[in-house]
Amino acid sequence: MAAPGELALIDTIRRRAQATATPALRLGIGDDCALLGTKTGEEIAVTTDLSIENRHFRLDWHPAEAVGHRTLARGLSDLAAMGARPCAAFLSLALPTALTKAPKGKKSWADRFFDGFLALAEEQATPLAGGDLAESPLALADIVLVGAVKKGRALLRSGAKAGDLIYVTGRLGGSALGLALLEESARLGKRTKTAEEQETPLGPHLYPQPRLEQGQFLAHRKLATAAMDVSDGLSIDLARLAAASGVATELDAEALPLFPGATLEQALDGGEDYELLFTAPATAKIPATIAGVAVTRIGRVLPKRKGRPQVALCEGKKKKALEPKGWQHFA
Amino acid sequence: MAAPGELALIDTIRRRAQATATPALRLGIGDDCALLGTKTGEEIAVTTDLSIENRHFRLDWHPAEAVGHRTLARGLSDLAAMGARPCAAFLSLALPTALTKAPKGKKSWADRFFDGFLALAEEQATPLAGGDLAESPLALADIVLVGAVKKGRALLRSGAKAGDLIYVTGRLGGSALGLALLEESARLGKRTKTAEEQETPLGPHLYPQPRLEQGQFLAHRKLATAAMDVSDGLSIDLARLAAASGVATELDAEALPLFPGATLEQALDGGEDYELLFTAPATAKIPATIAGVAVTRIGRVLPKRKGRPQVALCEGKKKKALEPKGWQHFA
Repeated sequence: MAAPGELALIDTIRRRAQATATPALRLGIGDDCALLGTKTGEEIAVTTDLSIENRHFRLDWHPAEAVGHRTLARGLSDLAAMGARPCAAFLSLALPTALTKAPKGKKSWADRFFDGFLALAEEQATPLAGGDLAESPLALADIVLVGAVKKGRALLRSGAKAGDLIYVTGRLGGSALGLALLEESARLGKRTKTAEEQETPLGPHLYPQPRLEQGQFLAHRKLATAAMDVSDGLSIDLARLAAASGVATELDAEALPLFPGATLEQALDGGEDYELLFTAPATAKIPATIAGVAVTRIGRVLPKRKGRPQVALCEGKKKKALEPKGWQHFA
Repeated sequence: MAAPGELALIDTIRRRAQATATPALRLGIGDDCALLGTKTGEEIAVTTDLSIENRHFRLDWHPAEAVGHRTLARGLSDLAAMGARPCAAFLSLALPTALTKAPKGKKSWADRFFDGFLALAEEQATPLAGGDLAESPLALADIVLVGAVKKGRALLRSGAKAGDLIYVTGRLGGSALGLALLEESARLGKRTKTAEEQETPLGPHLYPQPRLEQGQFLAHRKLATAAMDVSDGLSIDLARLAAASGVATELDAEALPLFPGATLEQALDGGEDYELLFTAPATAKIPATIAGVAVTRIGRVLPKRKGRPQVALCEGKKKKALEPKGWQHFA
């Protein structure tokens, strides 16, 4: 007799995940492994991201749908940053049992999590191909994305050269602004309607859009010399790109595309914007928009020199070293 | 200024992981994604497994090295069950900060975890290619394995046919026996020496050996019609294989290769043996040992029929339905 509980939840997920299947997914949830088809001349890109209750989301601030969306968006954004197309997602979910139970006449937290997760999965043609489930006192989601990119075309952090210009997609600081709004409003914990929030200032925080088309465009046309996604904050992420490339960088404060209402600090240190940060030669023709998303030139790459900061911020005629700030664990 | 903490731990892991690199790993830890080379005519196998403190291991029972070994072994065992060769491992680790600190003159728990993890990774030529780190009140490890298998050769759970015979590698019940020994001895929480435990009755529980060579042998020679690993318990895992294949099965109690000292119940319901359970046509020549590990015939596959149990246990002349037991969450 197959017991209820884990198996029942797995069956629900499996049934719902079937709607996201693609031909390249040869075998999905239900066996020891999933099987994915590969194409000749491609490399496989793999990324994992851990989201933990009270660290990356709060049950009383973030609607379950948004936690599901954000979990998948984090992984997809890493694929976007490599210029890869998504092949399959795998989700390990640890939940308190209470979150798997549906209150009378309502959906369970887990069901709503999958509403948000699978809506983005369908939108981005990313099958949910497997994962694991466990009971845990703390809610936690580990997302794995497997993608594919033409051999030699992946966008790395390490390719920026002195003389390149620095670009970013979309707008910055919107997620930090949304988080600040959530912090301010205790009442937000009680809402259940969330669809319309995508159109409010909370949208960038609750429902960030991974820039997959933009990353693939850059990789396909060989436009970018280096790229990464802005996940922890522009100041720390640009420092990482500079370190990986062995260069120094300068940002123009006035050029930064601030989300309406966001402060410069939120744009620099806020994180979770999931925009693409990339470098390209000054001669490269970078379009003003890629697949409907604005691209803004925000700075330049300089040779690494003793005493020159990894990231400097230019405000008018003043220039100062920018301290890398943003989310870090075990600090 | 790169802060200490997360970055420092990541640097340590990155440095240690370099010893496990292989040519197929084009890009390891440090960018948005890892990149893996693929071969023409292969499919990619992916599996994820979550291990949670107090659910899958206990800090006071299991040496840190064993937790690291078991984490990787669980994932490798899923690849073995498909007949795949490992390409890369990804590890998401959430730890209380205290476990990352080294007591004076000793290694930190995290360091010892990686001792166990990386020793098995090297032994099985499996590079640690990425992952994620987070602080958490509860220790938790999510392991992802990416493997490759010749197209059409993967061992699935769904291929067993009536008339096939059922086989298992190695011995059963050893892990449950070891766990029972751990439960009995409170003193075990204080030990730090662990290498010699691999030779004691605790070995199968603390340091299970994934049957990669055996799985690849079966897949390569097309010997098995269905396969899976015994992770939750023979009774429940065989029921899953029978359900996936749409067949009924019978086990011979006397034929089960019990680990010395283990009971029949431990062999049937104990779980975590990580042996391969597979079916093969009666005409197939199954060797008595594969790569040094014994293979034992333990039962047969029957047509599914109304009233016939998915798994029956034959003891002498008696036959009874075997209830699937073993580890389940949310039950």
